[in-house]
Parts: sequence; C-alpha cells; structure tokens
Amino acid sequence: MAPTRYLRSSASRDVNPDLDIERKTPSFDVEKLTTILDGGAENTRVRRAVEAVIHSDPVFSREDKYFLSQNESYEAAVKKAVHLKKMMHQMKWSWAGSECKYCNRALGGEVAFTLHNIFMESILALSTDEQTAKWIPLAENYRILGSYAQTELGHGTYIRGFETTATFNISTQEFVLNTPKISAMKWWPGDLGRSATHTVVFAQLYIKGKCYGVHPFIVQIRSLHDHSPAPGVTVGDIGPKMDFNHIDNGYLLLQDVRVPRENMLSRFCEVLADGTYVKRGSEKINYFNMIIIRVKMLSNEVVPTLMKACTIAIRYSVVRRQSELMPGDQEAKILDYQTQQQKLLPVLAIAYAFHFMNEYMNELFSKGYREIKQKNFDSLPELHAFSSGLKAIVTEHSTAGVETCRKACGGHGYSLLSGLPSLYTRLAASCTYEGENTVLLLQTARFLVKCLGAARSGQPVPPSVAYLSAVNSERCLVRDKRDLLQPDVYVEAYRHVAIRVLSSAAAKLQALVQSGAEQHEAWHQCTVQLVHAAKAHCHYHVVKSFAEAVEKLGQEAGIQRIMKHLCGLFALHGIFSNTGDFLHDGYISGDQVDMMTASYLDLLAIVRKDAVPLVDAFDFTDETLNSALGSYDGHVYRRLYQWARKSPSNTKQANQVYENYLKPLFQNGLSKL
Amino acid sequence: MAPTRYLRSSASRDVNPDLDIERKTPSFDVEKLTTILDGGAENTRVRRAVEAVIHSDPVFSREDKYFLSQNESYEAAVKKAVHLKKMMHQMKWSWAGSECKYCNRALGGEVAFTLHNIFMESILALSTDEQTAKWIPLAENYRILGSYAQTELGHGTYIRGFETTATFNISTQEFVLNTPKISAMKWWPGDLGRSATHTVVFAQLYIKGKCYGVHPFIVQIRSLHDHSPAPGVTVGDIGPKMDFNHIDNGYLLLQDVRVPRENMLSRFCEVLADGTYVKRGSEKINYFNMIIIRVKMLSNEVVPTLMKACTIAIRYSVVRRQSELMPGDQEAKILDYQTQQQKLLPVLAIAYAFHFMNEYMNELFSKGYREIKQKNFDSLPELHAFSSGLKAIVTEHSTAGVETCRKACGGHGYSLLSGLPSLYTRLAASCTYEGENTVLLLQTARFLVKCLGAARSGQPVPPSVAYLSAVNSERCLVRDKRDLLQPDVYVEAYRHVAIRVLSSAAAKLQALVQSGAEQHEAWHQCTVQLVHAAKAHCHYHVVKSFAEAVEKLGQEAGIQRIMKHLCGLFALHGIFSNTGDFLHDGYISGDQVDMMTASYLDLLAIVRKDAVPLVDAFDFTDETLNSALGSYDGHVYRRLYQWARKSPSNTKQANQVYENYLKPLFQNGLSKL
Repeated sequence: MAPTRYLRSSASRDVNPDLDIERKTPSFDVEKLTTILDGGAENTRVRRAVEAVIHSDPVFSREDKYFLSQNESYEAAVKKAVHLKKMMHQMKWSWAGSECKYCNRALGGEVAFTLHNIFMESILALSTDEQTAKWIPLAENYRILGSYAQTELGHGTYIRGFETTATFNISTQEFVLNTPKISAMKWWPGDLGRSATHTVVFAQLYIKGKCYGVHPFIVQIRSLHDHSPAPGVTVGDIGPKMDFNHIDNGYLLLQDVRVPRENMLSRFCEVLADGTYVKRGSEKINYFNMIIIRVKMLSNEVVPTLMKACTIAIRYSVVRRQSELMPGDQEAKILDYQTQQQKLLPVLAIAYAFHFMNEYMNELFSKGYREIKQKNFDSLPELHAFSSGLKAIVTEHSTAGVETCRKACGGHGYSLLSGLPSLYTRLAASCTYEGENTVLLLQTARFLVKCLGAARSGQPVPPSVAYLSAVNSERCLVRDKRDLLQPDVYVEAYRHVAIRVLSSAAAKLQALVQSGAEQHEAWHQCTVQLVHAAKAHCHYHVVKSFAEAVEKLGQEAGIQRIMKHLCGLFALHGIFSNTGDFLHDGYISGDQVDMMTASYLDLLAIVRKDAVPLVDAFDFTDETLNSALGSYDGHVYRRLYQWARKSPSNTKQANQVYENYLKPLFQNGLSKL
Repeated sequence: MAPTRYLRSSASRDVNPDLDIERKTPSFDVEKLTTILDGGAENTRVRRAVEAVIHSDPVFSREDKYFLSQNESYEAAVKKAVHLKKMMHQMKWSWAGSECKYCNRALGGEVAFTLHNIFMESILALSTDEQTAKWIPLAENYRILGSYAQTELGHGTYIRGFETTATFNISTQEFVLNTPKISAMKWWPGDLGRSATHTVVFAQLYIKGKCYGVHPFIVQIRSLHDHSPAPGVTVGDIGPKMDFNHIDNGYLLLQDVRVPRENMLSRFCEVLADGTYVKRGSEKINYFNMIIIRVKMLSNEVVPTLMKACTIAIRYSVVRRQSELMPGDQEAKILDYQTQQQKLLPVLAIAYAFHFMNEYMNELFSKGYREIKQKNFDSLPELHAFSSGLKAIVTEHSTAGVETCRKACGGHGYSLLSGLPSLYTRLAASCTYEGENTVLLLQTARFLVKCLGAARSGQPVPPSVAYLSAVNSERCLVRDKRDLLQPDVYVEAYRHVAIRVLSSAAAKLQALVQSGAEQHEAWHQCTVQLVHAAKAHCHYHVVKSFAEAVEKLGQEAGIQRIMKHLCGLFALHGIFSNTGDFLHDGYISGDQVDMMTASYLDLLAIVRKDAVPLVDAFDFTDETLNSALGSYDGHVYRRLYQWARKSPSNTKQANQVYENYLKPLFQNGLSKL
C-alpha cells in the first residue's frame, strides 16, 4: 500500500497544491483547536505519543483491511488484540486509562476482545466481593477470555422477554441452564462465536417452579485445554454482517449446562443453599453503569467516526476538480459549488455540535456520579432520559452524515479504498446497539410527558426540562437576516418548537384518555408524535449546549469566531431542514424562513474558507483514516491507483477464471459451448 | 443453505402461523394485482416460467452469496454468465427480450458481462453500417467480449473534461491513444478489469494539433490467444467496492496504443484518410438512447430492489414479536406498533408510486420514440429534463427506503443473511451512476426555469410543465381530515408547491442578474434552491401519475380501493415529511397540518391490514429474495440459524486462530507472553 508517514507538517511533505493552499491562511489557530478538542494539551501529547507507538509497529498495520475476508479480519483482530495486550502490559497502560482509548482510536477499533472488557465491567458491577476476587484476576491476566451474552435470537430490546432459563437444583447446588427453543439462543454477543472461554449469560431464574426474572450467570463455554465447547454447549459464529467482521459475534445454545450456585452474580440478590431468594441493596447504581456506556460510546466511537468522514470528504472536495464554475476558467474545486457545500458543511457543523454536546454530557454524568456515590439517586431518571434521547439523535444524524459525506465523493466514495463505506457500515450498527433508537426516544418522551405535567402543576422539575415551566414565546421578532445569527434568537426558536411539539403530543394523549381510551392504547396512538417531541427536545439541547460552549471560548477570539459560525450553521441547517416545525403555529413567518435561508447560504460560503483547517484540527493520522481520498497530502488519484494494484483481484487467481470460463467461450463461441 | 422451494401457495407449505394469518383475508385479489404489476397475465406467465428454469439449475444457485470474497464473487458471476448465454442460446431467448429481463430478475443481477450489452448497444448507436456488420456478429457470438470505457479517474460527470487523447496519424492511417496523466486513466468501467477483450474508449480527438472533442474508438485491450494485455495497455481491477464485487470494474492505461482509422465509431462524424473531419446527421437520436438507459434502469433495477426490501421487512415485522402492546397480552407483532408502521408503510407506498411513475414514463418514451423515428426531436428536451429529475428522486428515495427497511429490522437487518445490507449497498450506487443526482437535478432545473419564462410570456410549453402556465391557487380550502384523502386536493397541493418553489428560485436568479451578477454566477448562488425546485416538480408528477393510475383501475374495485389508500399515504407522507414547503406561504395552515397528520396516521392503520398481501403481490421467489428474514414461509429464526452454521467462519480455519494466538495467551497469561 502507499507509503504514509506519521508526519503532520506539510512543510516536510509533498502535498497536492490544491490542498496545500487551503491551509495557508486559516482564520484561527489550528493546533490550539486540536488541544481544545482533545480536552487539553496534555491529552494531545499523550494521544500523539500513543499514535506514534502504534503506527510504528507493523503488527498494527491496517493496509490490508479492505481486502480481507471475514475469517482474515477475525484473525487480524485477534493477532492485534494479543499484541496490544502484551504492549499495554509492558507499557503499564491500564485497560480503563486514556492510553487505551487512544490505542483504540489509532487502530480504528479493529481489535478483538472488546467484550472481554464488558465481561470484566459486568463482574465488577454485579458481583460480590468474593466473586470479584475470584474472576477478575483470571480475566485481567487472560487466563480466561470473557464475553457478555444478553441478546437472544428472538429478543433484543425487551429483556423481560428472554427465554433462556436457569433452574436451581437444590440437591446438587447448581443452576441448570437451558435454551428451550430456537428463538432463545443467545445471538450477537461479541467475542463469543470463536474466542471466549467464559461468558455472562442472562437467564430467567427458576427456583422450585417459580420464576424470579432475568439474572446473570457466569458460564464456562469452552475448554481451557483444547478450546472445544463445554458439555451441553453449542456455540458458533453468526456469519457475515454489514461490518464488524473482525468480531466473532456468536450464537450459544445451552442444553442442561450446569454451573455451581456461586456462579450467579450476586451483588443485588442471591439464592441461598436451601433455595431461598434474597434481594439486597439497590440496583440503581447498576442502572447508572448501563447508561454511562451510551455516553462513552458517543464520544469514543460515534462522533470520531463522523469527524473522519468529514475529514476525508472535505479534503477530497478541494482536490477534485470538475466542470467549470466560470466559463473558460480552470475546472473548479467541487467544494466551491454551493450544492457541495450544502452537503458537507452542515455535517461538519454537526460533528462539532455533537462534540460539545458530549463534553456537556460528560460533565453532567460526572456530577451525577458524585451524587450517586453519596447514595443520592435523584438525577437518575433525568440522566437516563437525556442520554437515551441523545444516543438516538447523535447516532441517527452521525450515520446519515457519514453517508452524506460518502455520496458527496461520487463514484470514488463507493470504493472501499476511500474508507467511507466502512465508516458508514460500521456506524449504521450504532442506531441499533446499546438501545434501539425508536425505543430510546419513546423512553425520553415518557419522561418528558411526566415532567410537562409536573411543570404545569407547579411542581419542581429537573434542570434539563426546566424550560417546560416557562411561558412559551409566541413570535420570533427578527426583521433582518443577520439577527438570525444571534444564538439567543435561534436557541429560543428551538425551545419554542420543543415546547410546542411536546405540548401537542401530550394534548392528544390526554384527549384520547378523556374520551375513554386506556392509557397504553392512547400512548400507542401517539408514538409517532411522541418520538417527534423527544427529538425536538434533544435538538434544542444540542443547539443550546453548542451556543454555551462557544460563549466559553472567549479567550480564543479566532476559534470563538469560527465556532460561532459553525453553531449558527448547525442551528440554521436544522431549521432549513425542518421549516414546518417552526412555521406550524406562526412562530416564524415565510418571510423569516427566506431570511434564514439567505443567512444559511451566507454561512456556507464563510465556513467554506476554513473547511480544511477545521478538519485538520481533528488531527487524524493517515493510518487512522486509512483512506485513499482523505490523506493529509491530498494525492488522491495516485494513492487510489497504488492501492488498487495491490488488491487480490489483481494479484490472485486472475488467470484461472480466464482458463476455466473465458477461454472456452472465446475459442468456441456460443454455438459450440 | 436452508431448503427453499419454488412454491408460492401456502397450502403446500409449512408456514409460520403469524405470517399465515396475514394472508387469510386480503381486501383485494393478490394474483390479479401481480399481473397488473407485471403488465399483463402473459408477462406473469413468462416470468414464472423463466424463474422455474433458473431456480432449478444448480449453477444459478445464490446460496453462497453472502460468504464470497471479491474474487469468488467474480468467478461465480462469470460462471453464471457463460452458463446463461449458453442457455439463452439454446432457448432462443434474445438479449433484448423479456426473458432476458426476467433472468436478470431471478438472478438478482449477479451475472457478469452486463457491459458487453452496453458495448453492443453503443456500437449499434454510434457506428456506420460497415462497422456494425464487422463488430456485432463477433460480439453476439462471444468471439470477443466488450466493455465501455467512458469514466476516468479524474472525470465522471464532466465528459468534456476527459483527458485521454486519440491523435490521428495520417501516414499510418491510425489513431494513437494515450493516457497522458494518472487522472486520465479510465476507471470504473465494468467487465474491464479482468474479462473484456475489447472496449469502446472515449477520447479527445486530435488531428493536426487541433482538438475536435470527445469521440468513441474501439480498442482491443487483451490478446484473443492468451488474454494478456495488448501492447501499450495496462489494465486491472480497481479493487473492492461497497458492492458489485461480482463485477470487475477496471482501470485502463494506454501508452501509444494504435488502432486503425476504421475503429473510430463514425455514424455521426468521420476522419477521412487525409485527416479531414466530417460531421454528418444529428446526434440527437444518440442522445435519446442515452436517456432511455436511465428509464430502463429505474424499472428493471431500482424499483424492484425497493420492492424486495419491503417484502423482507414487512414479512419479518409480522413474525417478530417484541414487548407488550397491552399489559399482560402476548408480545405484539412489531408491525402493530405505530412507529414501525410509520417506518415501513410509507416505503411500501413509495414502491407502488414509483412503479406507476415508471409505467407512465415508459409510455411517454414510447411516444417520444415514435416521434423521433419520424425525425421529430421536439420532445427531446422535455424527456431529458423529466428523466433526469426522476432518476434522481427515484434513486434517492429508493435508496433511503431500503435503508429504512433494513434499520426497521433491528439487529437482524444488520446480518448479511437478511439480504437487506446488500440491497442497500447495491442501490446506493444508483445515486451516482448514469448521472450524479445533484447534477441531474440541476439539468431539470435549467429546463424548468426556461419553461417558466416561456409560460409567463405566453409561449407554448411542453405538457409536463404546462401547469406552470396556470394561475397558482392561493389556499387549500379543506375543513375536514377526510377531504385530505381526495386526490384532487393533494395533487393540487403538490402543484402549488412546485410552482411556488420554482418561482421563488427564478425570482432570486432574476434579482441577482438585475443587480449586476453574471448569469453563471447568479445561477451558482441559486443552486441549492434550484435543486429544491426540481425535486418539487418531480414529486408533483409522481403524486399525479399515481393518482391517475388509480383512476384507471376502475374495473378492479378491491385493487383500486387499496391503491387509493397507498396513493393517499404516499402523498400525505410527503407532506408530513416536508410540511414547511406547504406552510411557507400559508397555502395550508397549521390546523390543516394537524388534520393531515391525523389522516396520515389513520391510513397507516388501514394499510397495515393488507401489508403482507401487498408485498406478496410483488411475487418474488425465495431464491430471488435470498433472505433469511423474508422468505415466504416466515421461518425466520430457523433459517438464520441454518444459514449461519454454513458460514466459513464456522467451517474453516476456526482452530488455527486458537492454536496461533489464543492458546499461547491462555497458557502463559500476559506476564509470559
């Protein structure tokens, strides 16, 4: 594959002049913005040091990525994971530390054993001290390899519907686990299909014929001697997926698999020797751990993926020239077309908006964590509702944004070598895992409806919904397109819509109940509008948190200026894409929509000028991007050609197909075939 | 892979009861609808006969599809193509006949040599009678295999910018073809990378130092004896793509490749022996041939792909049960959730809308073809504008619709075995090939702006834009939600928006020109709004043609009734998704939007009842769907498990990764690695 070097400075590199010129006069300090995005200069330093180590090690090379079969991807991911564990051990990097996060970033997440961490986290969260003392050292030292078997073939979101059973046998002091029907098979758990030796199985607990609901059990699924399935265990890989083929997502079928009583993770409830079921403590802390996974996933995986897509598409769009903008001129860079700007620059604004949203969420969760450690669980419902809705809109918009970037690169965006298809196919999964988006939005909506009722009856409500208590404004009063760029103007517009849409859904709900519908039936008939309300609430918060983050950048004038433009672009793009929400009750008028459109188009032209510095600030190495279109030096065509030549479609088997099929065809023609 | 049989009747099959019950009481005659979709009972008969032949032949089996590498996919496609040619030859089926179309449908398009047909069509369209007489028999009998080399690494949409050169050498009576720089390489042509022996190369013609623009040349690129590249030719595969890995899309680099003077396709212009350049006839007929490819592609590839996705997702959604709709009840079918209906049923309506739009377009083009054969080219600009815009919106909405279906199937929609990811990755390409969508929409917009000017100055305009001449209505007058289901009401609403959006873009354009901007600069500043106008025009036509098609179904009351519901659903979904367009100038009010939303949600519940019969009517065989989720019998979980077990991730190499990497890890732990 083409030589890529771990160098950022264009001075030392042969850079495509069309890209180079874009970097000559940024309106802000790019390196400073990078450190802000990293959360401080020290983080930037650590990240770059980790990247230097990873990229200099040939075991971690990703140059074959786009040529691998499912089996080869899996093998490469296992090889990298083992090597990484060894390296981290030598470097004394913890699996929960920031180096580990940066390793993952540098490797594009293409390592195995990610579920092993979830296995350990679940033990830490759900087990007694004795259980922790037994299992964690084994796992930490890789004497065993863990997975986490929750989802079943027939049940994903509805955990109460799980069909796997664990029946307590008093005489043997064992739980007997079974998969009573095909839909009860565990299906999808990562690292399970081919790697794991142990897993945490979630099963319906039965004691003396009575069901106590879903509980976690540690089950050994493979021999530690020869890796063969344990007695009663049928285990395998679920086959090829849209992406994540480096992970052995697996299936697991249990037939009278027996585990000792001590293998039920018993922090919150225990089965005594005589079969007595004992509950203890509050599971709320566990609940908090579950939702924090969503928050981490957004900042560690989802938003960086969107940032990569922006980097690739924007760099390519200043190198690609096509057609004439002015008759007789040189062909124009495609980023100079308004339609291309309208595709890519709002996505760039979304990436920044979600970044600042994540920062805000992380703060909120740190605060929540401190309270919870004091046994104060008051903020839990709000944190749950907030993180659910945000997970849904961030994954939805990020996935759509990556695909917009891919399509905006035309035919070359369809080549795997561009790196864009795999960013899309990978991110697409995030709309489903860690909570299916529609289900999550309805959970947010349920919280909002409740808070709206409380707010209206004068009761106190949590901070993120305090705005529901205020009187809603009636009209947007701006008379000039420039006024629409004021954060207070657009934040207020989003607030207005959030209140209106929620109020309208709640009114319908109430009317249905008053006209005699059962509560659940009324709810069911309002779900489309409730989802809408949850989205409007989240969108308002993203705009608001972005505007507040811009405020705080006061000491960095250049960065603050460009971030304010991006914030305006994000806000106006949202209005431009959903004008009906704002026009519906006359909050804004058709004339104001026209002004807003004019402002929006002006912003595209302004942000265009800094587009390349704005993606350079994300500071992805060429190795991390792994894209023929998006490298720092912009040598797009040369790299596409160099990489294509190394494809197995050119290096293997080419002649065999000719000998077997084409030669007889050409020599004999159809008549003698 | 799981046994699938070529049987449609549920009587003879073991069908999942949750799916079976959906078929018990359709509100219309399903078989009759199938024949209407096929364009007559005779077509249905021929199609099923072809499917029976194809599915009974093991060479055409697609059961390994999701497990193949790029090389294996290519080999399978070549093998099938050779076998198919032989079969068609024996059955005396023509490559332009309906059997060939149905073969392609049955095979899911997974055969090689599709570019060979384009090669032949281009010769028939562009060559003299002598050239046709020389090349067509060779191609028809597969003595040679053709490709079509237009797109370059650096140029796709902007054909005038092609950089490949063909220089006429008078002394040798040859054209000398060259790739002067890397961006001039031919890149993307199908069948070129590994299969073709000949191709039509588009190159800038130079005679005595003067450039005459882009012309087509037949170039032999590989030896007919051993398939090695011809002298001066560098050719290969461009590597893995998001899909279409069964096609060897290729690159081609030419260094002083010489072809005789007779190899320039010379129907419209010729280079005489002395270097004189002679033009003759009109290229308009050729232009017509180019746009008809777009129309065929929509009805043969794009819309059927959307229909397949609907079939899979809707069948799965009545088999999958998740969570409780009523407390204490059995878990509900996911299609009974309003949010799931809102995802899938509008997509189903879109599939039907586009089907009837295609029928209308085919009629229009048949009429155009008759006129053009009489040398009457008057309708050409309209047909071009119309087909361009429709290609853009049909591919855009179909691609998005397929992905909506995939996501609506949750985790299992992410498995390749569902069949949905490959429908998406494949259709995604259609937004780029045969004209990039944004470029096409701007061509439509250019025509519309011209026609609007003509209409306003009282000049005659073509039929599809005649509506621009009428006075635009000011208000929608409905006062009841049921009125919104009247086709004349919603067709009028779309008409209103189409006129308003176009008028507004044209007004901005005119204002810019009047304030001193150059025409092209003004155009550039309006492109976002012009794209909007082109989409509104096309959307209006789709709604209108669907409503008109429903009118014509008068003799089939049951079918007409359900189609009217689908037409209403399509129209209201479009309003629901773009309310701002309709609210902007007060054409509809917020209250009317609320009525419309109520009508829209009512329609979802109505169409829900016939959802399965409506996809059964598409009449795809299990073999064509090739989906573990979408088979006629609904045995989703059983099939997923059966198929997964056959994955190479379970049958090959599993133990090797253990021996190489996992065993040393478990035995030594980290400390001794």
